[in-house]
Amino acid sequence: MFDHRKYGRELGLFDSDPLIGAGLPYLLPAGAAIRHALESYVAELERRAGYQHVYSPVLGKRELYEISGHWSHYSDDMYPPMKVGEEEVVLRPSLCPHHALIYRSRAHSYRELPIRYAELGGMYRSELSGVLGGLSRVRAIQLNDGHIFCTLDQVADEARAALDLILRAYGDLGLSPSRFLLSLPAADARIGEPGSKYVGDQESWDRSADLLGSVLRDAGVEYEQALGEAAFYGPKIDIQLEDAAGREYTLSTIQVDFHQPARFELEYIGADGNKPGGDKLRPVMVHRAIIGSLERVIAHLIEQHGGAFPAWLAPVQVVVLPLSDAEESYAAEIARRATDRGLRAEIAHADEGTLGARIRENRQAPYQVVVGPREVAAGHLALRHRDGHQDDPAEAGAVLDGLMVACRPATLQENPR
Amino acid sequence: MFDHRKYGRELGLFDSDPLIGAGLPYLLPAGAAIRHALESYVAELERRAGYQHVYSPVLGKRELYEISGHWSHYSDDMYPPMKVGEEEVVLRPSLCPHHALIYRSRAHSYRELPIRYAELGGMYRSELSGVLGGLSRVRAIQLNDGHIFCTLDQVADEARAALDLILRAYGDLGLSPSRFLLSLPAADARIGEPGSKYVGDQESWDRSADLLGSVLRDAGVEYEQALGEAAFYGPKIDIQLEDAAGREYTLSTIQVDFHQPARFELEYIGADGNKPGGDKLRPVMVHRAIIGSLERVIAHLIEQHGGAFPAWLAPVQVVVLPLSDAEESYAAEIARRATDRGLRAEIAHADEGTLGARIRENRQAPYQVVVGPREVAAGHLALRHRDGHQDDPAEAGAVLDGLMVACRPATLQENPR
Repeated sequence: MFDHRKYGRELGLFDSDPLIGAGLPYLLPAGAAIRHALESYVAELERRAGYQHVYSPVLGKRELYEISGHWSHYSDDMYPPMKVGEEEVVLRPSLCPHHALIYRSRAHSYRELPIRYAELGGMYRSELSGVLGGLSRVRAIQLNDGHIFCTLDQVADEARAALDLILRAYGDLGLSPSRFLLSLPAADARIGEPGSKYVGDQESWDRSADLLGSVLRDAGVEYEQALGEAAFYGPKIDIQLEDAAGREYTLSTIQVDFHQPARFELEYIGADGNKPGGDKLRPVMVHRAIIGSLERVIAHLIEQHGGAFPAWLAPVQVVVLPLSDAEESYAAEIARRATDRGLRAEIAHADEGTLGARIRENRQAPYQVVVGPREVAAGHLALRHRDGHQDDPAEAGAVLDGLMVACRPATLQENPR
Repeated sequence: MFDHRKYGRELGLFDSDPLIGAGLPYLLPAGAAIRHALESYVAELERRAGYQHVYSPVLGKRELYEISGHWSHYSDDMYPPMKVGEEEVVLRPSLCPHHALIYRSRAHSYRELPIRYAELGGMYRSELSGVLGGLSRVRAIQLNDGHIFCTLDQVADEARAALDLILRAYGDLGLSPSRFLLSLPAADARIGEPGSKYVGDQESWDRSADLLGSVLRDAGVEYEQALGEAAFYGPKIDIQLEDAAGREYTLSTIQVDFHQPARFELEYIGADGNKPGGDKLRPVMVHRAIIGSLERVIAHLIEQHGGAFPAWLAPVQVVVLPLSDAEESYAAEIARRATDRGLRAEIAHADEGTLGARIRENRQAPYQVVVGPREVAAGHLALRHRDGHQDDPAEAGAVLDGLMVACRPATLQENPR
């Protein structure tokens, strides 16, 4: 494995600057191309899975986090509040309270459930300077977050569907989890008692833990119980990865939450809701992150793949190599036609070195095309794969159309019209 | 025109919550669909125009803004700094200093210029409570920002290209500017003198103003000079819109900046840069926002179009109306096939009212398809346009393929492969 902190900078994927601050890296164009591919991918995955996207601000009033419980259970990790006008606002430690308010802004019927909100949103964590490093521990996090508001009966199906999305995404990303955890309270936890780390009641916690355990077992996944690793509002499934130094961290998660729906008094109208005295019922919230934080997943992709990313993620997907100056204009045309197809293409110009040197220089690109006089004359391209395999020359448009397909993630290939 | 604050809430596009805070609205799913369409559109427009996207954090150290000049010229509008670890960070008032640091993180040759960075990024403004309203005056802004680093000789071409992108985008959005302004310092401004609102030297300001004026004249655009409306670091082109109450505000802007390149000591290596004593030259920064802030542009789209958005922006692009319960399953299949094509589709179910009532209810959707027994039997669809015009029935797949094209912005239709 590669150390992403060193290698990611060498590859020109990200960097940091003391004038911006510790734990606040930025993505250079090549890293931004990866993030953009990840964003588009996960948004499409979610859209197909019935999620509705929302956008909410990264700030909230202190009172919001007093209600959610973050203020009393999580404030050590929070940024300090700021006075703006007459109000005291704070950079949010998580997106769930915002999504609870969005749910609450409209009346909902049982027929609408499950309602699935997803957002790629910023959240902020006042990490200690000592633990900060590269992209894996940062103070500003872009989370692929989502919250499902559903009936108790729907929780298991929704958690199962989320786990399925996670496993599919890992396939497309070429990532392998090191462990699956069922994160539970510490053995001696006094759930819901004053001063406890955990809110709510023992019965809800037991029910959530049972549900999540059965989801893991049904998926045929081996898992371990992790005592003391639950969220303050409920147990969770955590999907662990190992970094280049062998340290384990959580990327994706699925959580069941009875607490925030109660605190925010969330409701839906039951089947007999329109009759006098009809039901107002409380939904359950399922929290989930499919690819987790973009910073962490990019860090892990670098550690796993070095610079040889899956084609759909590669900052440069196809490099066009003119044999000599005479083929520069054809190379430019091919690069333009590739770009018009949405491919990320670059030219390794003839004056940048010998053909062999340029091929080696760009060996991490998934595809290369060398264009010489024969290709120009015939309007052909011969595709060279990263593994050295070379296709027979074929008509340029057809080759580029094929590349368009090859540069889509496998999961999104299926498009049954 | 429509008042977006009232109408946008009624349409379920956005809302706000006292627990989040004043001037911090969120986008509900329908509004988020519009924002997502805008984001994808402008990113593609920029990609084709040779921009590289970057992502930078919304925080920076106080020192960063002391260098850029924001701290002394703009701090009334800034959020208060926060102590995090040993550092004092602040929510950024603009993206330009971050982009200057990103430019500076790597050496650049004259051959690379112009380098065009674009980012859809958050910036924060501590507006007074009294002026806040809906989406048009907010405390958290998502800006479609961009900075071009180029030689002085390239400035006019780059500003011209940015103006061209702005005019094309307004065409696709169906927006008409109320005025074009050349924003200059106040008549009695003492550029660069201590205590002045404006930094730099008179000669650079004059040169920038001349360049921007010639860009407006070359584009054949009528404009007015607006004294006292310049940025603290340079003159700008401002493109003004009028809201429903007749108030004018700026959406898009193009600015020429000699100041920040000097403050951040930005450089590029000139043609003889590799010789001993060779040139280290200073680039010029062109700031530009094509569709401005997403909050403002969405506010204006609501005021301009009510709920009848251009097809590519409509939250629901096609509504499928089964004549009776018998056609519900065919309607579901059509909606799924539309969704598979990336269209935003919904079903107006037979049990929701008479056909006439459902057609009226969904009259703002750009397209409707009524499916009855004849359509089911033939596998056909008859497309109904928002203006009431109805196409002859045709094979369903062909109709949906046609819709895919009709639901793309005109500018992105041209795809010369």
